[in-house]
Amino acid sequence: MPPIAPNLVAAVNEARHWQDMMAMAELGAFTDPDGHIGVNRPCLSDLDRQARRLLLGWAEKAGLSASVDRLGNLFLRHEGTDPTLAPVLTGSHMDSQPNGGRFDGIWGVIAGFEAVRALREAGVQTKRPIEVVAWTNEEGGRYAPGCMGSMAYAGFAPPETWDAITDREGIPFGQALTALLESESDLPRRKLGVVEGPAPFAYVEAHIEQGPMLEAREADIGVVTGIQGSRWFIVDIMGKSDHAGTTPLAMRKDAVQDMLRAIQALNTLMHDPADVLRFTVASIEVQPNTSNSVAGLARFTIDFRHPDNAVLQARGNAIEGVIQAALRHCTARVTERFHAVPADFGAVVPDAVEAAAKSQGLRHMRLPSGAFHDAQFLVPICPTGMIFVPCRAGVSHHPSEHATPEALAAGTRVLAQVLADLANR
Amino acid sequence: MPPIAPNLVAAVNEARHWQDMMAMAELGAFTDPDGHIGVNRPCLSDLDRQARRLLLGWAEKAGLSASVDRLGNLFLRHEGTDPTLAPVLTGSHMDSQPNGGRFDGIWGVIAGFEAVRALREAGVQTKRPIEVVAWTNEEGGRYAPGCMGSMAYAGFAPPETWDAITDREGIPFGQALTALLESESDLPRRKLGVVEGPAPFAYVEAHIEQGPMLEAREADIGVVTGIQGSRWFIVDIMGKSDHAGTTPLAMRKDAVQDMLRAIQALNTLMHDPADVLRFTVASIEVQPNTSNSVAGLARFTIDFRHPDNAVLQARGNAIEGVIQAALRHCTARVTERFHAVPADFGAVVPDAVEAAAKSQGLRHMRLPSGAFHDAQFLVPICPTGMIFVPCRAGVSHHPSEHATPEALAAGTRVLAQVLADLANR
Repeated sequence: MPPIAPNLVAAVNEARHWQDMMAMAELGAFTDPDGHIGVNRPCLSDLDRQARRLLLGWAEKAGLSASVDRLGNLFLRHEGTDPTLAPVLTGSHMDSQPNGGRFDGIWGVIAGFEAVRALREAGVQTKRPIEVVAWTNEEGGRYAPGCMGSMAYAGFAPPETWDAITDREGIPFGQALTALLESESDLPRRKLGVVEGPAPFAYVEAHIEQGPMLEAREADIGVVTGIQGSRWFIVDIMGKSDHAGTTPLAMRKDAVQDMLRAIQALNTLMHDPADVLRFTVASIEVQPNTSNSVAGLARFTIDFRHPDNAVLQARGNAIEGVIQAALRHCTARVTERFHAVPADFGAVVPDAVEAAAKSQGLRHMRLPSGAFHDAQFLVPICPTGMIFVPCRAGVSHHPSEHATPEALAAGTRVLAQVLADLANR
Repeated sequence: MPPIAPNLVAAVNEARHWQDMMAMAELGAFTDPDGHIGVNRPCLSDLDRQARRLLLGWAEKAGLSASVDRLGNLFLRHEGTDPTLAPVLTGSHMDSQPNGGRFDGIWGVIAGFEAVRALREAGVQTKRPIEVVAWTNEEGGRYAPGCMGSMAYAGFAPPETWDAITDREGIPFGQALTALLESESDLPRRKLGVVEGPAPFAYVEAHIEQGPMLEAREADIGVVTGIQGSRWFIVDIMGKSDHAGTTPLAMRKDAVQDMLRAIQALNTLMHDPADVLRFTVASIEVQPNTSNSVAGLARFTIDFRHPDNAVLQARGNAIEGVIQAALRHCTARVTERFHAVPADFGAVVPDAVEAAAKSQGLRHMRLPSGAFHDAQFLVPICPTGMIFVPCRAGVSHHPSEHATPEALAAGTRVLAQVLADLANR
């Protein structure tokens, strides 16, 4: 890699960067009962358009050229000395969770913009173009599923796939997308990713960690090695409702008690002394759910994640048998409703991130991402990676989500160096 | 006790008794998706008035005199040879659960009526009067709590206590009661129980078991020894919500997992090899209750019942300590929201019930009632007892609630003999 460019690192302006973050956070801002300021900015909403317009204004001032594809993915381009080369892509998303925070997603877009602006201000030329992207609908809060923009870009699904999906007010995704594109008809329309054009040279996404590891280990930079795999299940334990005052325990088919047995057995199956495996039962529904009627049905969810596909498959496939063996009086139905294999970022981008963090004297650690990101859909089409910065107490998707100006600036400085590095390869 | 009167037992007319039950069940009848015919007859509703009117018509034909007290408790009197003696009281309630069955409550009223009619038809005279009572609002479905009529009668609460309680449509109990009394202004108004008048000589209530014991033991008659005590608790397990994909298990405060530990520890505390103790966790609520967010709060209910007050107190008082000791990462708040000590029926009425069942060659067993009944409020004011008959699979409070014509007639024959016995003491 090239030697560190001190003027580039110095050109990342922490105060300006924070100011931009806070200006953007006003679009959809609300204050929760505890006094935390959150953001509610659904994709393709008026607020989303305002946020994009704000970014476009900054980009214009910085001399970047903007374009949009048919999925509404927005691109800001810093030209390379050889414009024919495949660009280095960086970015994230601008939509928020329904009652989300001020950092998830939006920081990756603004970090990309600040990094490119710093590059230009520092006079650092790059061989390859660099493009900052804002993907459409990552969160899936208004239109499920999420990651529509990156999925369409990478050819995971045809671009019309989600047109008929409606939000809570009955507005189809296709209609909301058309309205957005009409409002941005001043922008050049570009080809849709690898479906209609060439692949990027590499993709780097900056994001808050959304977990507690960096804070706990006092690391500044997370060198993300991939995105762990996930398998989600719904389990129905079917018993029989009876009068709680009259039915002897030996005669019951108590769905709550057999649910307990099932979860205990799963705790044993999922035990991991290294604490890498994530096993969570977080949603429970009971019927009839009245205190004096024995539960006839207990439904619970399983969220199981692991970065190693062998573990994900072996233990995930054992879930149903373990549950069935644990039941004493009831029957169970186990339904898998989501299955994503781990995404491995390989060496190219993670090594570049690690080298940049190291050269800047920042504390860093390698870790897989526990949450989903647009990055996972880029993995098959180009070298991909992510840069994490710590967020307070690991909290995200909540108004109390927080990252310090220092933490964000450190991540953006690493991103600037990684972009300069990759765009000169 | 007097020798069995064969003509009295023969005078209980099984076909007519069933016909009356089915005629009454038409008032509020509905058919559920499984084809079961249930009853929805709220207290003080038009349907309730129609049901009372139907009963009053039958009573008039049978030569009984009717009266009503200020709580709407309805009485049908069979005169004794000495009208100055305290009457033997029998009955139950005519209101149903919101989606209830055709037997709970109403059978005790119609059984009392059929027993008295059989007495009269058989020419059996009694020294004491016998009164059949229909208590107002036992179920508590429209106006909570239940057992208002029997509570007011027995002096547990002043009769105005519930006047301001409203139903879901905002109609106060006092207003609905006044409307009922106006519609029955043709009936003589009587004094309200022991509050305004003398105590009855004894009280006998016939009821379906609402549990599976009689059916399981192939018994015709349950000789009810009392009503077990109950203690109800709500337990809040307070943890911390976190991202299920990113938060290591060792760093979590998972309310679901600590709820499991608490319930397991309670299972141990509540273990009863004799299977007399009733311990039920039947209602669970989790927050935020999304599959990929570790539970920050888990709330569950405890329904704990036992006929022995020493057990009820000792184990009930141990609940909070056992929960606190079981928690690993969370804190708990335990709130007791209901506490009813056991009601013991003593010897007088249970012995009379047992003697009658025996003399009629019926299979019988002694058992406590697992459910609440108006009878428990009569215990302090006079010798009290109940007669149970088996109901299919122990189910009640559901359209599939069922008792056979034979089972009901057997119970009513025992009731007739018990009334004749007690009213001649």
